[in-house]
Amino acid sequence: MDSTTLGHASGPVMLPAAEQAAAIDEIQRLFASRLRIMDTKQWDLYGSVHTPDVVSDTFGAGGSVVGRADLTEAIRNVLDGSVFVTSVHHGHTPEITLTSDTTATGIWAMEDELWWTNGDIEEHLHGYGHYHEEYRRIEGRWLIGYRRLTRLRVTHSPHYFDYLSAG
Amino acid sequence: MDSTTLGHASGPVMLPAAEQAAAIDEIQRLFASRLRIMDTKQWDLYGSVHTPDVVSDTFGAGGSVVGRADLTEAIRNVLDGSVFVTSVHHGHTPEITLTSDTTATGIWAMEDELWWTNGDIEEHLHGYGHYHEEYRRIEGRWLIGYRRLTRLRVTHSPHYFDYLSAG
Amino acid sequence: MDSTTLGHASGPVMLPAAEQAAAIDEIQRLFASRLRIMDTKQWDLYGSVHTPDVVSDTFGAGGSVVGRADLTEAIRNVLDGSVFVTSVHHGHTPEITLTSDTTATGIWAMEDELWWTNGDIEEHLHGYGHYHEEYRRIEGRWLIGYRRLTRLRVTHSPHYFDYLSAG
Repeated sequence: MDSTTLGHASGPVMLPAAEQAAAIDEIQRLFASRLRIMDTKQWDLYGSVHTPDVVSDTFGAGGSVVGRADLTEAIRNVLDGSVFVTSVHHGHTPEITLTSDTTATGIWAMEDELWWTNGDIEEHLHGYGHYHEEYRRIEGRWLIGYRRLTRLRVTHSPHYFDYLSAG
Repeated sequence: MDSTTLGHASGPVMLPAAEQAAAIDEIQRLFASRLRIMDTKQWDLYGSVHTPDVVSDTFGAGGSVVGRADLTEAIRNVLDGSVFVTSVHHGHTPEITLTSDTTATGIWAMEDELWWTNGDIEEHLHGYGHYHEEYRRIEGRWLIGYRRLTRLRVTHSPHYFDYLSAG
Repeated sequence: MDSTTLGHASGPVMLPAAEQAAAIDEIQRLFASRLRIMDTKQWDLYGSVHTPDVVSDTFGAGGSVVGRADLTEAIRNVLDGSVFVTSVHHGHTPEITLTSDTTATGIWAMEDELWWTNGDIEEHLHGYGHYHEEYRRIEGRWLIGYRRLTRLRVTHSPHYFDYLSAG
């Protein structure tokens, strides 16, 4: 899925070089804040780094999640619902490309770890892959409009996801 | 603790955009060099990336450590004192904010691992969290003036810290 | 080994500040793409991010590997030869220095993990260290001209490298 299939404007980049650099810096900070907000469980802020019509294809069999409220609810359910899950998401070596003055794409190497306690058993998930994102500038602010995750590897302990079906 | 409580000047950012970008780049390189110097145990260089009055609140129950010499001694004691400790500290996705033309704050996602050998037993510490730092420009060079560490998770083997009390 | 020993031109940096910043950004993206291309096994692209005369000193006892084709063959043999090896290479906190308008050096903190299955046994390598690279601008594009790897720590399962001698 790219910005064309989402129906978003795409066109020549007209911004002066310095403003292009500033846009890329802002997008990288935006990405940074999303991971920090998620891992510190600040759910009241999580929606605000995304566009109102954000689409996330990172929930696997759950299908696409659309919109700030549903996206916040979906991730909160995984990390901070019936079970408190400690999470660490790290993003590396961004490749950001402006596709117009108000749209951009980004690829980030990523690693995530999740831990929760099932009685006496510590459950654990450990994944590696790449985030593929799209960004839009709305009212002067860059926001995340799309995200999918490709995996190089994921492992988890046997009963890791039990809490989701139980919850 | 913020720059106000430390009594440092804070004010409007007057630098042109290109110089602001250059300042942020320099701060990110400074941070990079601190981790590299620490993990390669170049203690003669460790103090020089900090301000003379640097305050570190990363030593837990040890309280604040103040000044280049004491900070170098404190970290050297942990990593390269009575026991040789292999360390890896990685920093990710910086969020740097200029708070005046000569002051800035930064948040970095981080992960650290330490290993040492206790006879036949390999001891290990593995942590995750965020560095919260303050920077000051002194005589044309950005330096680290303050650091604290918030943790998402730390685990370590049972006798990991024994060498510190023994040393 | 530095650019002098490789016989490459080195001189004053004459580029305006904005173009220096753009060069460093491009080098950081180049580095990012190299790791992504390697871990996603796009061998038809791997050579193209390096100079035609690239030298890699990252193969240990294998000695220097020279040139795009040989370098691609060497890494392909490790990761995607007789055995399919899942790999994750992450790079952190770049320290890029322009050494002239068309040459630069870079140090990156790194972590790599490799996994392969030997019958019922999962073999694993886990390393940490720093990449030390050199870059050259050729026909308007920055490319990687040299790479070596210094290690802080490497561990691997007992029969990890058997497949290389077997292959």
